[in-house]
Amino acid sequence: MNMKAIGVIRSMFARTENAPHQGVHSREVARLVIFPEHESLLEGIERFEKVMLIYGFNKIKPDPKPGALATRTPNRPNPIGVVVVELVERRGSVLLVRGVDALDASPIFDIKPFIREIDCPD
Amino acid sequence: MNMKAIGVIRSMFARTENAPHQGVHSREVARLVIFPEHESLLEGIERFEKVMLIYGFNKIKPDPKPGALATRTPNRPNPIGVVVVELVERRGSVLLVRGVDALDASPIFDIKPFIREIDCPD
Repeated sequence: MNMKAIGVIRSMFARTENAPHQGVHSREVARLVIFPEHESLLEGIERFEKVMLIYGFNKIKPDPKPGALATRTPNRPNPIGVVVVELVERRGSVLLVRGVDALDASPIFDIKPFIREIDCPD
Repeated sequence: MNMKAIGVIRSMFARTENAPHQGVHSREVARLVIFPEHESLLEGIERFEKVMLIYGFNKIKPDPKPGALATRTPNRPNPIGVVVVELVERRGSVLLVRGVDALDASPIFDIKPFIREIDCPD
């Protein structure tokens, strides 16, 4: 299945060795830059405190090891990541978010509201 | 970016109108059938109570409407879903899980342990 980027992440992590292992540990603010033709998809997103970001690992060539699915390694069968981030502010087609662990220039595939009752089952 | 299926979901939902809106409301047990060549990736997964499943909406042609990213509609820019499911049992290359909202025959792209401290930030 082919995935199409709807935007790009602008973060301060230029290389893998600088990125946090999990975004939840990062307090830096990154920008989710949505391409102009997709800006209307964002309508109403500003009312959520947190969003789930689905993005690509554009600098990793998948080569998963035995047990990879039992870990959170970025070396997975498909180079895709999911992270819950804090939505600080929307500025038109750009979302300022906190908690991103992605490298700069990573493609954005989807964003959706984080809803605790759905995403954090007991 | 091209995504490669590592397995297939066997659920009781043959058609969109039968599927629950969110898997968290489903108590049915579905099977995540991992292809034999990827079975070793599952090593150790049986010690987790919940896993995050990343899968494809194989029967939906993306045609997102304005505001789609502010909702949980399956009609998204990319036909990919994320759901947290309860891992009931592992039987070799098959995981029995509860809480799937996916249609039967949906492709599986990734599975990872659900870790509350990471996936449910305060």
